[in-house]
Amino acid sequence: MNIENKLERLRQAMKQSEINAYIIPSSDPHMSEYVSEHWKSRAYFSGFTGSAGTLVITETESGLWTDGRYYIQAEKQLEDSEIKLYRMGEKGVLSYIEYLMRHLKKSEVVGIDGRLFSASTMQAMKGNLRKKGIKVKAGLDLVSPLWEDRPKEVLTEVYLHDTRFTGLSCKEKLTQVREIMVKRELDGYVLNELASIAWLFNIRASDIAYNPMAVAYAYITREKAYLYIDGSRLPIDVSMALKLHGVEIKKYEEIDQMLKEIHQPAKVLCNTQVLNYHLYQLLDKNLSVKIVEDSDIIMDLKAVKNEVEIKSIKEAHIKDGCALTYFMVELEKQLANNQSLSEYDLLSMLTCARAAQENNKGESFSSIVGYKENAAMMHYAPTKENHKILEKEGLLLIDSGGQYLEGTTDITRTIALGPITDEERLHYTLVLKSHINMAKAIFMEGCTGANLDILARGPIWAYGLDYKCGTGHGVGFMLGVHEGPQSLRMSNHVPFKKGMLITDEPGIYIQGSHGVRIENILLVTDYLDTPDGKFYQFENVTYFPIDLTPVDFTLLNADEINWLNDYHEMVYNKLAPRLEGEALKWLKEHTQSIIL
Amino acid sequence: MNIENKLERLRQAMKQSEINAYIIPSSDPHMSEYVSEHWKSRAYFSGFTGSAGTLVITETESGLWTDGRYYIQAEKQLEDSEIKLYRMGEKGVLSYIEYLMRHLKKSEVVGIDGRLFSASTMQAMKGNLRKKGIKVKAGLDLVSPLWEDRPKEVLTEVYLHDTRFTGLSCKEKLTQVREIMVKRELDGYVLNELASIAWLFNIRASDIAYNPMAVAYAYITREKAYLYIDGSRLPIDVSMALKLHGVEIKKYEEIDQMLKEIHQPAKVLCNTQVLNYHLYQLLDKNLSVKIVEDSDIIMDLKAVKNEVEIKSIKEAHIKDGCALTYFMVELEKQLANNQSLSEYDLLSMLTCARAAQENNKGESFSSIVGYKENAAMMHYAPTKENHKILEKEGLLLIDSGGQYLEGTTDITRTIALGPITDEERLHYTLVLKSHINMAKAIFMEGCTGANLDILARGPIWAYGLDYKCGTGHGVGFMLGVHEGPQSLRMSNHVPFKKGMLITDEPGIYIQGSHGVRIENILLVTDYLDTPDGKFYQFENVTYFPIDLTPVDFTLLNADEINWLNDYHEMVYNKLAPRLEGEALKWLKEHTQSIIL
Repeated sequence: MNIENKLERLRQAMKQSEINAYIIPSSDPHMSEYVSEHWKSRAYFSGFTGSAGTLVITETESGLWTDGRYYIQAEKQLEDSEIKLYRMGEKGVLSYIEYLMRHLKKSEVVGIDGRLFSASTMQAMKGNLRKKGIKVKAGLDLVSPLWEDRPKEVLTEVYLHDTRFTGLSCKEKLTQVREIMVKRELDGYVLNELASIAWLFNIRASDIAYNPMAVAYAYITREKAYLYIDGSRLPIDVSMALKLHGVEIKKYEEIDQMLKEIHQPAKVLCNTQVLNYHLYQLLDKNLSVKIVEDSDIIMDLKAVKNEVEIKSIKEAHIKDGCALTYFMVELEKQLANNQSLSEYDLLSMLTCARAAQENNKGESFSSIVGYKENAAMMHYAPTKENHKILEKEGLLLIDSGGQYLEGTTDITRTIALGPITDEERLHYTLVLKSHINMAKAIFMEGCTGANLDILARGPIWAYGLDYKCGTGHGVGFMLGVHEGPQSLRMSNHVPFKKGMLITDEPGIYIQGSHGVRIENILLVTDYLDTPDGKFYQFENVTYFPIDLTPVDFTLLNADEINWLNDYHEMVYNKLAPRLEGEALKWLKEHTQSIIL
Repeated sequence: MNIENKLERLRQAMKQSEINAYIIPSSDPHMSEYVSEHWKSRAYFSGFTGSAGTLVITETESGLWTDGRYYIQAEKQLEDSEIKLYRMGEKGVLSYIEYLMRHLKKSEVVGIDGRLFSASTMQAMKGNLRKKGIKVKAGLDLVSPLWEDRPKEVLTEVYLHDTRFTGLSCKEKLTQVREIMVKRELDGYVLNELASIAWLFNIRASDIAYNPMAVAYAYITREKAYLYIDGSRLPIDVSMALKLHGVEIKKYEEIDQMLKEIHQPAKVLCNTQVLNYHLYQLLDKNLSVKIVEDSDIIMDLKAVKNEVEIKSIKEAHIKDGCALTYFMVELEKQLANNQSLSEYDLLSMLTCARAAQENNKGESFSSIVGYKENAAMMHYAPTKENHKILEKEGLLLIDSGGQYLEGTTDITRTIALGPITDEERLHYTLVLKSHINMAKAIFMEGCTGANLDILARGPIWAYGLDYKCGTGHGVGFMLGVHEGPQSLRMSNHVPFKKGMLITDEPGIYIQGSHGVRIENILLVTDYLDTPDGKFYQFENVTYFPIDLTPVDFTLLNADEINWLNDYHEMVYNKLAPRLEGEALKWLKEHTQSIIL
């Protein structure tokens, strides 16, 4: 069935449900960043497969809203359909809510499936639509009846994440959470975000690609901790451990019942940014419940890594650096031997290189391997059918990461496969300057992403260029590769704390020509404690050489050269003891000191 | 009468008014930054003469709250009184509202004079105190009956600010304001801020030191414009011009009546940040009025300077640079001749140097002349009784500015009078690096002070130092030297616009030892307009040499040296045509290119 047929059937269903527009977002009921195949209904109905996007269908039109990472991909994937692309973030482009406000008439109705929207999104949407007299009908699942051959939810075996990695047991984490609940006078705390649940209970699984989490809900009170999960997935060691830590295991579906049956007056914490609207409504309708909309306790706790986690994370990055070294040796060998290699071939080479490392649990996201102009698409993914063959020239961008029991990695390197243009050399050097300038940052307690972001953008702005995404994101611990609340963006006002991780990944993307990105993960650590205040610095926890062949050294100053030399010395010291033969030789060559 | 007696009499008055605490802020009914002598009641009752501070008196205690600029001064001035100093912004220091919440019991009463508090301050205060059951009695003027020999309000002759400086007539400005009122669906707009009133009506006066404004209120509707001012102050040319532009002149006191007598249903804009609580209450009690709390139309309009204003401002800065050159020649001559010179002597030298320039209307603030350790007090002012004698060594900090019909200036230079310590040299060089790093900033449309501030702080933070104030402030046009809404602070989220002015004044202040600050005014101008967006840069509009004798050149990079050479070349080109003889010679010597 093509997109046209799918949209036609959707419009028939809309008519039957007496609604004038229907919204299909990218989410699942857990507001996951990566959703399982079962929940990819927006891709099914629109053909656009990017990770972020919202499809809106009215009686006569349809539109897809996506952000700068996906403009080019969406353009391609939508070009044969009626669906119009709305470039979010570009000047003068309506949001989909503004679009609905403009295109629908008073008393017309927008339908949605409340499980797939966060409570805060719905609150904002309803408020705006109400101004124009437009109504919202939540609880409308039009997708299930129409989606033939819909993939089933995959529920994998759950395993424990050992305290030798996590540092804290589930019981200790529950104590931490409850201390904050008491301080904030909270009686209950609903969780639907899978990363928070995985962190709290020290459990992991493989339900969703790249995210080692188990589909579940949780409800925490001052005395009890309920985990809503398919019990058949829990091996005996897991269920025993959970019970030992005072966790009661309930059926996945029973969360609804629980929220309906809170009978004692209770103040319940909701992070409306991630709690789905369906669950929110259950709480809202329960007269015993007073909803407290406040910052998420676990989101804040898990963003700050403890000493044991930090030690683990560094170990994970040593493994990742070794894996990438083997990958690079192999890549260079094949290119030298004139073997035909495509972007797509590199995907499995990356997977295999990481899988060879002990405790690897797959990749942390879908690798981006972009050669030449494909690298200008920030989230490009080559496919079996659609990819470029590598040649001995130009820039190749590889953004990939692994999940290890020791932690989650995320690294981007852009490498020259041979001669490059002057423009490519300039852009590579600017991105490197930006990357270094952020990595060298020294900043006071209280500083946020909004305060620091210009350090990376400055050298690129000086040339009238900008990258249309944040400079960096928080990183989970053997969890999501994108985890807040901190981020390096002009608009993020969450103060950095010691123990937080943040990626440093400025880039330059020239549509139709080339793309450059250099990404390491930085750890917030102490710098100085003086009468004037507490100062932080970043410590690099990514250990892998940065390609120097595309650098225009005349644009680097002495501080930048020193930074590169120090970084490469550290990389060598971290990785060399684990490598031998060709790999060690490659490392040695690629971490040599720059002498100008 | 000493402070003890004054506080005793205040406590008696509090008892009679049946209140348990009384708050005396630094303000006047116009929320002015500088208040006339008539309104300096906080200084009268506490002895602390800084520009910012709040005195709180309870039955048994008294406290003064002030910020980092004044810690050292307040410490000195309060040391012999019962008044405890509360250092605002330091960790663990209660705000005065928190203090009242902690020290007062339920049903106890806090008294204030509603004219001296902004509506937003009172809203917040009342909300907080209510939580503890503490009441607020507004409209209590305990000061007037107790203050013997209180200075009278000085009402000076009003004069017109010619459109050859302002670019826009009062009528044109009224049109601009009303266009925004229509767009925002506003019927009325109350103004009590003197700078806004002066800007709108193109009038100036000398009621308040340093601020060439006239004490007045205004009320604007879509058809009418009312100016509430003592009519005897208006020469015939002024009143004629105002009438010609459609302005109706009313008695100062009649603003109360006007706000009470709005009979037609009207949406009235209030900037609750500056509207005094007394006027706010009048509107609030008027059932025809719907108060719209929103951003201030004129504050936003006057922050963006037009082409004519910018041309004027540059002329004002040329005059100011010439004045300071004559001042420096005189200063060096006297020091060379071993004449005894004090910090205090320099104040009148500065005043005279500026007064010699055509169209000078005095100074834009009380000059700060701090020698050696006195410069560590950010807002130190030497007095006839209390000052240091200059010697041929150490650093002298001079922060001063002028009011000219062409514009308002504000400049700080720190100069070495002879040998300085290694630490002084390091700190001077760091401040210079910070200053240059901000001046060189290139930034995208949408960037705010919060985004840019780290450019100045970075080089200083790298040494574990910080200055406890913003990096810079907006500047009025022949109006207040500190005008928002933009500022260079970690917490300011107002985007910079082309035509805005901002000071760049990082500093290092070592208590008991020395202080360094270097300040220029920067103008936001176009840099590049590319497919990636609109980029801005700063243009320096302050023209005066930066002392290079205290610089450690080994700490400067090539870009910084180039910046200094370019800046000094521009300064020379701007000032040289207006100078001759010794002054020209001095300028030439102090703008020479650095050759390393």
